Amino acid sequence: MRRVPATVAVPKYLQIADDLVQAILHGDLAPGQRAPSENEIIRQYGVSNTTARKALRDVEQAGWVTRVKGKGTFVRRNQVERAADKILSFTRNMILAGRSPSTKVLDRRVLRDGFAAAINGRNYAIRGPVFKIHRLRLADGVPMMIETRYISMAFCPGLDGKDLTGSLYDIYEQDYGLRLTSIDQMLSVEMLGAGVREFFDLQEPVPALRVDGVTFCGKEMILEIEASVYRGDLYRFAVRAT
Amino acid sequence: MRRVPATVAVPKYLQIADDLVQAILHGDLAPGQRAPSENEIIRQYGVSNTTARKALRDVEQAGWVTRVKGKGTFVRRNQVERAADKILSFTRNMILAGRSPSTKVLDRRVLRDGFAAAINGRNYAIRGPVFKIHRLRLADGVPMMIETRYISMAFCPGLDGKDLTGSLYDIYEQDYGLRLTSIDQMLSVEMLGAGVREFFDLQEPVPALRVDGVTFCGKEMILEIEASVYRGDLYRFAVRAT
Repeated sequence: MRRVPATVAVPKYLQIADDLVQAILHGDLAPGQRAPSENEIIRQYGVSNTTARKALRDVEQAGWVTRVKGKGTFVRRNQVERAADKILSFTRNMILAGRSPSTKVLDRRVLRDGFAAAINGRNYAIRGPVFKIHRLRLADGVPMMIETRYISMAFCPGLDGKDLTGSLYDIYEQDYGLRLTSIDQMLSVEMLGAGVREFFDLQEPVPALRVDGVTFCGKEMILEIEASVYRGDLYRFAVRAT
Repeated sequence: MRRVPATVAVPKYLQIADDLVQAILHGDLAPGQRAPSENEIIRQYGVSNTTARKALRDVEQAGWVTRVKGKGTFVRRNQVERAADKILSFTRNMILAGRSPSTKVLDRRVLRDGFAAAINGRNYAIRGPVFKIHRLRLADGVPMMIETRYISMAFCPGLDGKDLTGSLYDIYEQDYGLRLTSIDQMLSVEMLGAGVREFFDLQEPVPALRVDGVTFCGKEMILEIEASVYRGDLYRFAVRAT
């Protein structure tokens, strides 16, 4: 591979791009607002039009702004924030964000043989019967996330007979008296595959955050194993490190 | 937008793709190992070659496997795991992962006016002088992450005179006697812009995880504000929700 030279100056256009991203993060540039034009950047920074164009292209490629032909460049719509270190249902998260959640059940079946997965290098298994459910989750009609859950029917007998278009966490707690104690999650970044993109009504490749998780309802009691894929352009995740 | 129909069967190729990803996560398919061929999938699942090809393409697009012309499809190299909910330096993370960390300083300067950023919807500011440092972090010579840190010189006087090619956390603790108490982080997914890709020696667009964080060394004492971009294909992040 090509080695990185020992001394590398940060190009001017990257510094300008960084400034623009900071302005968006800081709220100085709000969603829907027009981003500085090439000419404004040229004037403000005293740079060439090539540099201004590269800065804007960089910010656009990173997904912070959208160029609308003949109209200008605009800061993208606000993303939904999700706390990744708290147990919170999609339903509740969307309601807190002021959006209207809905759900399409794509598949549901009972797996007699159980299910196993590896999360953060550890293997977890749920004995059969396991209820597998595949759902698309929407907010204000927009597909936000797609999930597959493998749920222990030992903890949730009769789950397959219930209405499963809302919060499963509510069902666990209210119908089965279970208390969710922790979720061990593995977050990874991937491109949405062509198949998943169809559900999301997306033509273009979009980066996504995948969450593989194992949910406990007490010490070493595995309630469910999940694989969820969140649209990267519509989500931000909050995590506190201590 | 096109509405998702009320009932959607999950296509067979997606189910096969899911099985392959689970096999990788579970360790049944190890990094570097050959993934099942189209013909093996056709035999194992009793599907058409179109379905087998779509399943493999889906897994490839999501970054789990790489196709090598004339040789087959292989599970990608192991990713480094990083705990996103624990305070841990890049240096220490890499050593724990059995890799050899190194650092290129791209830029360093003192900002007299201070620095401010918004993290998880809250505004944070550090009064000047602030030390800004832009670094590329490598493991075994491979660029893994690029970061910009804005550090309070009130807490770290003389920081600009030090060797900054190693762990800054070690310097905070050992040279300044500071104890890092928490980092509030905002994780988002983005595509690596063309400028950043140059540092990573990447021709193709690659998804990345961006971390914007504010680091405290005591109650309401802001030590630094950071913006780090991790290569999505080389990293996984562990987070426990409670």
